[in-house]
Amino acid sequence: MRRCACPGSFDPVTNGHLDVLERSSLLFDEVVVAVLVNRSKTGLFSLEERIDLLTEATAHLDNIRVTSFHGLLVDFCNAEDIPVVVKGLRAVTDFDYELQMAQMNHRLSGLDTLFVATNPEHSYLSSSLVRDVATFGGDVSELVPPVVAARLAETLPGRRG
Amino acid sequence: MRRCACPGSFDPVTNGHLDVLERSSLLFDEVVVAVLVNRSKTGLFSLEERIDLLTEATAHLDNIRVTSFHGLLVDFCNAEDIPVVVKGLRAVTDFDYELQMAQMNHRLSGLDTLFVATNPEHSYLSSSLVRDVATFGGDVSELVPPVVAARLAETLPGRRG
Amino acid sequence: MRRCACPGSFDPVTNGHLDVLERSSLLFDEVVVAVLVNRSKTGLFSLEERIDLLTEATAHLDNIRVTSFHGLLVDFCNAEDIPVVVKGLRAVTDFDYELQMAQMNHRLSGLDTLFVATNPEHSYLSSSLVRDVATFGGDVSELVPPVVAARLAETLPGRRG
Amino acid sequence: MRRCACPGSFDPVTNGHLDVLERSSLLFDEVVVAVLVNRSKTGLFSLEERIDLLTEATAHLDNIRVTSFHGLLVDFCNAEDIPVVVKGLRAVTDFDYELQMAQMNHRLSGLDTLFVATNPEHSYLSSSLVRDVATFGGDVSELVPPVVAARLAETLPGRRG
Amino acid sequence: MRRCACPGSFDPVTNGHLDVLERSSLLFDEVVVAVLVNRSKTGLFSLEERIDLLTEATAHLDNIRVTSFHGLLVDFCNAEDIPVVVKGLRAVTDFDYELQMAQMNHRLSGLDTLFVATNPEHSYLSSSLVRDVATFGGDVSELVPPVVAARLAETLPGRRG
Amino acid sequence: MRRCACPGSFDPVTNGHLDVLERSSLLFDEVVVAVLVNRSKTGLFSLEERIDLLTEATAHLDNIRVTSFHGLLVDFCNAEDIPVVVKGLRAVTDFDYELQMAQMNHRLSGLDTLFVATNPEHSYLSSSLVRDVATFGGDVSELVPPVVAARLAETLPGRRG
Repeated sequence: MRRCACPGSFDPVTNGHLDVLERSSLLFDEVVVAVLVNRSKTGLFSLEERIDLLTEATAHLDNIRVTSFHGLLVDFCNAEDIPVVVKGLRAVTDFDYELQMAQMNHRLSGLDTLFVATNPEHSYLSSSLVRDVATFGGDVSELVPPVVAARLAETLPGRRG
Repeated sequence: MRRCACPGSFDPVTNGHLDVLERSSLLFDEVVVAVLVNRSKTGLFSLEERIDLLTEATAHLDNIRVTSFHGLLVDFCNAEDIPVVVKGLRAVTDFDYELQMAQMNHRLSGLDTLFVATNPEHSYLSSSLVRDVATFGGDVSELVPPVVAARLAETLPGRRG
Repeated sequence: MRRCACPGSFDPVTNGHLDVLERSSLLFDEVVVAVLVNRSKTGLFSLEERIDLLTEATAHLDNIRVTSFHGLLVDFCNAEDIPVVVKGLRAVTDFDYELQMAQMNHRLSGLDTLFVATNPEHSYLSSSLVRDVATFGGDVSELVPPVVAARLAETLPGRRG
Repeated sequence: MRRCACPGSFDPVTNGHLDVLERSSLLFDEVVVAVLVNRSKTGLFSLEERIDLLTEATAHLDNIRVTSFHGLLVDFCNAEDIPVVVKGLRAVTDFDYELQMAQMNHRLSGLDTLFVATNPEHSYLSSSLVRDVATFGGDVSELVPPVVAARLAETLPGRRG
Repeated sequence: MRRCACPGSFDPVTNGHLDVLERSSLLFDEVVVAVLVNRSKTGLFSLEERIDLLTEATAHLDNIRVTSFHGLLVDFCNAEDIPVVVKGLRAVTDFDYELQMAQMNHRLSGLDTLFVATNPEHSYLSSSLVRDVATFGGDVSELVPPVVAARLAETLPGRRG
Repeated sequence: MRRCACPGSFDPVTNGHLDVLERSSLLFDEVVVAVLVNRSKTGLFSLEERIDLLTEATAHLDNIRVTSFHGLLVDFCNAEDIPVVVKGLRAVTDFDYELQMAQMNHRLSGLDTLFVATNPEHSYLSSSLVRDVATFGGDVSELVPPVVAARLAETLPGRRG
């Protein structure tokens, strides 16, 4: 069975992430979405909320499993017997950092990284930009899965009103 | 009347900013300089000081108005009936981030962004670098408008002495 | 009257070009589309065909004029009394070259260049890629204005048949 | 069966290509190496030679098939029922062009592209650089598979003597 | 005597740094390694530890002197009569920032900056990535000089056990 | 004696090149300017003219020697006992290609490459752009050394008249 990991913070999952997960689910037998536990950073959503939102947003894909990890990605992938990571690639500055991480991971354990070109419609989408826009009451309903839009409306209510 | 916005932190305004504002004032009927209110970050100068310094530094340009905004740039531009933003573009890493912001803003409200190539003489100038140099007593008098150089000398006195 | 030039080879005009022309026509009183005469390169369409296709593709915009130029863009803009060039910006490698040209033009005559962020949907579109795809019988009808698609079908007939 | 295509000119195949092919052969059931037939460009090796060299250099990988294609990659992949392309990614300027191609191919037929980070040891390797070095008598024996080094020595004999 | 400065945080010194220092020691009569004192940031190692580790890691190079500086690099170089800085260059995003710093320093005092291409084997190495990997118990013994690996094992003991 | 090579086509030498040569002459005991002989490309000036123009333009620098080379740069540097190459670095796309060349050269013979940040005033200058501007009668007299401006006026006479 060919299995890949899709790691990230997913705070929150965007339509760009969903595009990468959908493409990965066609190319691999199992896709393990791995939410990074970052104890030093407080996010918009808690770890549990992120996992819930990802699970709901990917409910239509039957070979996706959502979990979390702490520490090194290479250790997580070793433990889960996953030989390859899939990441979306949007911009050149992404590329520099991601390439560095990919080469470090390959050196540490032989873990491979595949980058999938995102749909150009999502090229400007990032979780941090979505958070900023939503925080100031902007409409992000076309940028994130419906379940995330609904949760954002509850979490940050009345910004437009 | 064709109106554009030039948003930024301007902490402080540099000769690179001034170059962009001067070029914009030739191309548009009115240039609205919009200083971003960022409550989570303490800067070198207060919002009022930045507005004062910008107003003095652009006193020779009679179609420039300096103001501030809070929240989303698209909301500010809608309220002010401004269809286009003008920004200076210095380097590739600027480009990636600014392109992402520009595409997000266009998606949110149809707001357009125009990038103006900075004068190469100013290509290495940024507010944060100017702050760093001035803080450690370096001479920035050729990098910022005279009014800013004078205010920096008052604010950070005696560093060289 | 505020006038801008949009120079290029336009061999052929794509939906990405059209997006830039439509945005420019909203921001300026007159947009002068300037097709570069390149005697050393044979293109897919002749200069006359390119001008025809551009004229038809922009027929819905009443402040656009299509013409051609030979030699230096700064000389053309001086002769036509145009103070600013507008160009679409798609990718980082574009940026490097275009910034260099923009700074050279500013040095030569004070001509300014404004870059407009293309719609992300068009970020992968270039005339040369459209030519390649069309030449090998690929369907480019959603990538170019209808009039160009029709002309390509006549020029490169029966590739799929 | 999960199948991918690795397209390219491979004139000649380098150790960087071989690294990508070896990684791909671990991740997919079958890897189809697709040598592009480019009638307008004369290369160092003929199409037949390139196919031979690739076949010999990948003889240790039992799920690799070497073939050639002409025209659009999307047509080739449709005909061969291949849903995904794998390419090595070395540098930022590669990235810009390859991302554009990948997004065009996805638009034309839904074909996906995965980029694999090359081993940093091979980051400076390109076929054209290998050709240049070998043509002027430089030693490329550690940069290409042994079978290619041997063929280059026959093809470009006595450069050092 | 030709003297250069190699400034940085060196928290900790990596094999990539060491490669740059070794190359510099061949090209200059004296190499002054200048550890930046950053009072606002707490690092993994103290300033004294970093100097010790650098001194031990470069003990085989007899024209290297390790020291520290506070404030502007141009002031340090003026005081030490050093006309040129040597830095390693790994990636494009490095380049943008370093070029800006180099041009600022040249403007401030005429100080020149030379960038040396790092060995591709070290292209993915950064102090912050080494810190992250070591903190989570990853094996960095091939990424840093032996003396640093030993000190990391003492400082972050038992992560694997 | 510390010696460096500054290789290039220099067709023609620009003020940007001259800036790099002047900085190199301060940092090294001898600077060997090495004009690449490219038999497959016809340039604006012949090899002899380029050497003459470089020699005149650098007459004020007494540790510069102008010569030419054919074939691999590493062979030239070996023969001349030169351990390091100095190149100007202007833009990111330069960087990608030059880094690749530098790493190849280091692999082939241990030859090092140092990149010097160009003066921002010259960041938009390239020989090919100067050729284009001069060919169409543009004024390049502030972009090249006076001796080159004079020769261009003789070679491409009457373009403005």
